[in-house]
Amino acid sequence: MTSKLLFNLNKLFVYLFLFTLIFQSQTFSQSYDWLGLDTIKAGKFDNGKMWTFEFPPIDYFKSEYGFQPSQKWFDDVRMAALRFANYCSASFVSEDGLVMTNHHCARQSITQVTKEDEGEDLHANGFIAEKLEDERPVPGLYVEQLVLIKDVTAEVVSEIEKGTNESERVKFEKDIISKIEKRESEATGLRCQVTALYNGGKYSLYGYKRYNDVRLVFAPEEQLGFFGGDPDNFTYPRYNLDCAFFRVYDENGKPLKTNHYFKWSKSGPSVGEPVFVVGNPGNTDRLNTVAQLEFMRDVQYPRTLEFLSGLIEIYKQTIKENPEKKLQMQDMLFSLENSQKANAGILKGLRDPILMQRKIDFENTFKASVKNNPKLNQKYGELWDKIAEIRAELKKIANRNFALSKNRLLTPQYFNIASELIKIANELKKPEDERDELYKGEELENSLKALIPENFDENFQNKLLEKRIEIFIKYLGKDDPIVKNFTGGRVGDAAVKYVLSKSFLLDLDKIKKLVEQGGDAILNSDDPFIKFELETADLAKNYQKQVRELLDKEESYNQQLGLALFEVYGTSIPPDATFTLRISDGIVDGFPYNGTVAPPFTTFYGMYDRYYSFNKEYPWSLPDRWKNPPSDFDLSTPFNFVSTNDIIGGNSGSPVINKNAEIVGLAFDGNIQSLPGNFIFRTEENRTVSVHSEGMIQAIDKVYKLKRLSEELRNGKISK
Amino acid sequence: MTSKLLFNLNKLFVYLFLFTLIFQSQTFSQSYDWLGLDTIKAGKFDNGKMWTFEFPPIDYFKSEYGFQPSQKWFDDVRMAALRFANYCSASFVSEDGLVMTNHHCARQSITQVTKEDEGEDLHANGFIAEKLEDERPVPGLYVEQLVLIKDVTAEVVSEIEKGTNESERVKFEKDIISKIEKRESEATGLRCQVTALYNGGKYSLYGYKRYNDVRLVFAPEEQLGFFGGDPDNFTYPRYNLDCAFFRVYDENGKPLKTNHYFKWSKSGPSVGEPVFVVGNPGNTDRLNTVAQLEFMRDVQYPRTLEFLSGLIEIYKQTIKENPEKKLQMQDMLFSLENSQKANAGILKGLRDPILMQRKIDFENTFKASVKNNPKLNQKYGELWDKIAEIRAELKKIANRNFALSKNRLLTPQYFNIASELIKIANELKKPEDERDELYKGEELENSLKALIPENFDENFQNKLLEKRIEIFIKYLGKDDPIVKNFTGGRVGDAAVKYVLSKSFLLDLDKIKKLVEQGGDAILNSDDPFIKFELETADLAKNYQKQVRELLDKEESYNQQLGLALFEVYGTSIPPDATFTLRISDGIVDGFPYNGTVAPPFTTFYGMYDRYYSFNKEYPWSLPDRWKNPPSDFDLSTPFNFVSTNDIIGGNSGSPVINKNAEIVGLAFDGNIQSLPGNFIFRTEENRTVSVHSEGMIQAIDKVYKLKRLSEELRNGKISK
Repeated sequence: MTSKLLFNLNKLFVYLFLFTLIFQSQTFSQSYDWLGLDTIKAGKFDNGKMWTFEFPPIDYFKSEYGFQPSQKWFDDVRMAALRFANYCSASFVSEDGLVMTNHHCARQSITQVTKEDEGEDLHANGFIAEKLEDERPVPGLYVEQLVLIKDVTAEVVSEIEKGTNESERVKFEKDIISKIEKRESEATGLRCQVTALYNGGKYSLYGYKRYNDVRLVFAPEEQLGFFGGDPDNFTYPRYNLDCAFFRVYDENGKPLKTNHYFKWSKSGPSVGEPVFVVGNPGNTDRLNTVAQLEFMRDVQYPRTLEFLSGLIEIYKQTIKENPEKKLQMQDMLFSLENSQKANAGILKGLRDPILMQRKIDFENTFKASVKNNPKLNQKYGELWDKIAEIRAELKKIANRNFALSKNRLLTPQYFNIASELIKIANELKKPEDERDELYKGEELENSLKALIPENFDENFQNKLLEKRIEIFIKYLGKDDPIVKNFTGGRVGDAAVKYVLSKSFLLDLDKIKKLVEQGGDAILNSDDPFIKFELETADLAKNYQKQVRELLDKEESYNQQLGLALFEVYGTSIPPDATFTLRISDGIVDGFPYNGTVAPPFTTFYGMYDRYYSFNKEYPWSLPDRWKNPPSDFDLSTPFNFVSTNDIIGGNSGSPVINKNAEIVGLAFDGNIQSLPGNFIFRTEENRTVSVHSEGMIQAIDKVYKLKRLSEELRNGKISK
Repeated sequence: MTSKLLFNLNKLFVYLFLFTLIFQSQTFSQSYDWLGLDTIKAGKFDNGKMWTFEFPPIDYFKSEYGFQPSQKWFDDVRMAALRFANYCSASFVSEDGLVMTNHHCARQSITQVTKEDEGEDLHANGFIAEKLEDERPVPGLYVEQLVLIKDVTAEVVSEIEKGTNESERVKFEKDIISKIEKRESEATGLRCQVTALYNGGKYSLYGYKRYNDVRLVFAPEEQLGFFGGDPDNFTYPRYNLDCAFFRVYDENGKPLKTNHYFKWSKSGPSVGEPVFVVGNPGNTDRLNTVAQLEFMRDVQYPRTLEFLSGLIEIYKQTIKENPEKKLQMQDMLFSLENSQKANAGILKGLRDPILMQRKIDFENTFKASVKNNPKLNQKYGELWDKIAEIRAELKKIANRNFALSKNRLLTPQYFNIASELIKIANELKKPEDERDELYKGEELENSLKALIPENFDENFQNKLLEKRIEIFIKYLGKDDPIVKNFTGGRVGDAAVKYVLSKSFLLDLDKIKKLVEQGGDAILNSDDPFIKFELETADLAKNYQKQVRELLDKEESYNQQLGLALFEVYGTSIPPDATFTLRISDGIVDGFPYNGTVAPPFTTFYGMYDRYYSFNKEYPWSLPDRWKNPPSDFDLSTPFNFVSTNDIIGGNSGSPVINKNAEIVGLAFDGNIQSLPGNFIFRTEENRTVSVHSEGMIQAIDKVYKLKRLSEELRNGKISK
């Protein structure tokens, strides 16, 4: 499993943690006098370069690159770009409906079209449709083309303003958006969606034309698409053929004829050349206030990382003790480590006093513009303080809320069993005919049997329990009555032993006996998990409610801040990413790295260096056809490259084009320095990593020998 | 110009700055509660692994590697190792006196043997002695073999103890060392030198056998020896054939026959294999106290870096404005940038709160051992406080001393001209026959003409002057009478213009007129530089004296601290580097890097990747014979590798051997993470970078086709 720029997969992971792990009260104080922070200013593009198609920065392109694209240029580019299912970006690259995206965006599709019963392993061996007829339909896969953009701000905002209080406003916003979407969809036959830009500073209606017959044309082996695996993920120099090709078919089952596609560049990009990434970045937090960022830095990310490493330790320990579990646990371990890497990169940025000072400087400038304008000041002047207050409130309840919250990965199953048993007990107290079907007659027996999951792994769960007890002690306090009660005042392994010695949750016979005695026998039992659940249920709910209320309140402040930002800066600052189509400019350029400089390009020589350097071992192993490439394959062909475009998860599969709107590359990742891109974009170091157009075409032509594809790419159409 | 591990060159640079730039009073305060520093402990090898041959850690080798070398093993290894001139390390690698060292250690020799008049360019083309007779003697070059080690601690210490005060003790130490060296040299015919280990905790007499007829056998092209140049210097992954071979000849002009040499490993090192680096590390500061390190962190290195970057800016600006000066200034610019890189790496380490905490933890443990022993406590208990007091005193006079000190690189020549003119003026006041010869009659005319250097570069000097004025204002204060007088209260360019408008130092006619009027006419003139020099001369001397006295005093505390360290830890901790022979153990191992892992080995594929990635441009260009290597040359041959041995400047050219004392590599650099190795050695990240034995032999055999050398290496003797 990978995450890279694919939207949602990694994000999902991050969120999973953030929403439950964000609360603790550790303070953070530092003085960095020696860095001369007072001289540090915000960079021009700290808020990024993810421009919308409704407000492209034409003047800036002109002054920066001497390039003044016409409206037609933007329209053509927009129409050639695609959203790939609901997690990636893509583009048309021939008039015959050929679609290019990343290999890692195609994984799910590759799995779907694999004929397992015929012994196929397309992940290991790649997929090559030798002929048009060999292209394989992917059930359920679709791509979407953004064909309509409409500013609906006035309509939405006027409706919102009718609300007399916060909750009314939230409701009215939701209602009007639904209404607009429905109306426009019916009128146009498109999938229409209203997106709030600038936290609601602007509302855009996007109408997508969806193509539902998408077939797989070509995918390299996983080892080429993801050479270097998780260790090399989020890094550069890089050597990945992270591309896959699909084809859209029309209603008649013929390759789609389209006027909107990107031609292939003859030579690929050169160093210093301006290039544009067109795709759908998923989510950024760049408009967050300093108070919100500080909360992330001091509370949210440290906690997330602490528990990620706790979990990783548990998985590693388990695999070490039970090598047979390696296969089963490896994916989760990789995924946790990948998440750890991403989070660590963001935290490293947040903890960099210079980066934070740039955010502070921007906020001060923005705030001054608001405060110096009486009208703006009256509307927005207090927002920063209000948000800071919310974060201060959140900090107060952080520890206890975190300790009591249930998290799928961090909660030992004992607690879930106890919770389910309490539910059963309460049902048992009702007359049988009022009970839920599950707890009546024979079904009750089955429900009891289902209490302990089939794959219950005692060793693993007990490790998790030890970690959980550590959390209780850390965040509720060793002397908290609930904790003391639960652990008998013990810590570590002794506490685990004590708790388990008193628990009957794994003893089905005992449970059955108690059930026979009725609900109160369970509710009054001295099982420590049951007691804990009963003691903390209301408390935990209460904390959750407080947190939710605070965040809802903050959400409305965020929205107003977005309006303020838009009033002050207009479209000179792009909105945070919203998984809608953006165009980001940049130039092909190396960056400072490892005490030296990373080259703008890599070549296939580099792949072989890493292959042999790691003794051909996974994840730097190579599939057979690559072990001895054909003699006419030139290893000095550029393979991957870096550029200063601004991308993030969701941009996976985005085309990289030159001024002539020709394909020069295919974005697939960022460098390790791009991780703080979540909250700040730094032209100096943040880099987009792409597969080079020439690298793709040479590999397809010379190594995979799929001439019909390389010719189609070169000619922009199927060869007759 | 490079610096790498070559002793002195880079060090010289560093020192140059440190001794004048170390003083300023900026404070540094930080709180890192969130890092949980209280849990951080010193690492076992924070003080490094540069073991002496007198006290090798045999038990540790046994427990760590299951390897218990005999005394004979150590003796053989010591006798095969060499000191290369007074700046590098080397070794015998055949019974016929063949010597291996780094290419960058051989540069000076290569220059010396180049027949320029025959149009030779051995730096560009390399040197290949096809036959024995072609080997070229290098005038003045010598190598030294450590043949005698004698503990003279008792003799030295008993003499020192006769001193009744600090200055006597310093004198007695110097005298007894001279006496011993003279006595032992006469007795043995060796070059004998007494080295103080542990700041004087131990004294070892080293007797060196010197070989004076050393001839160049083989050196690759500079572009192979230093591929990647200054940018890649101090980094890894790396692709450098940084080797050169010499041969020692005996008194009869025949190749030296020696029993002491390292055989060549058949296969080179494997991952995880223990390897030993034998060489002469130059200098480390690992036994420095926390107070000294904090001074480095807060005062010394930030200041050094600030002015390095100031200078670099001036050089770059000058080159930009006068492209014709590029050739002349490029070397200095590279050298400054290299120095900047090294200093930045050390400072980064000093500023890492975790690294510093490890030093604090070690000091606390050490101090506790002293304090808990009444005898030790009486002798040494106060040393840490005393050193801290010295550093506090130094901080007080730092600013003004720095501002007034003269530094070759940072002082505009105007001040030197003024200073010389003042000297002349004072001479002029004497009767002519009492004057120095230079200022009499016709010579005076010549001395006046020589005032302004021939290569005086006004544009450059004025930039330097602006920087200097910035320093005055920053460290003496804008309102300081001296500064105000000098700049007329102006800053920046305006100050420069003001000063120059009032100065006549470039006006030789004016100067001559004043000279005719006599010394007082000069001394009373209103030239701002002359006035400044007259006003500040005594002040500056006074500061320098104070600083010198403080450092001398500290030196004696350092020495006592060395004694204390030795009394507490004995030889379990190795002494700081002293440019004498050490053996350092380690294993071949990659390290965390750039968000992923650096491989233990690199291959020739990697060199070609970097070559093509940077479009074949210098410093990643290749000489002709490498552009198309012969088809039988296997690019997957290991080229460079990393290991956890502990080395530093001076170790350049050290052999890397395995348990069988066979050559597996040739140390030539450290990774960027090794730069804080100056004060702390971290096994986790600090790596020695070496040329792989197989990479050397394959290149010599297949590309340079110097079969007689590759065979001699394989067989350990000249083939008949």
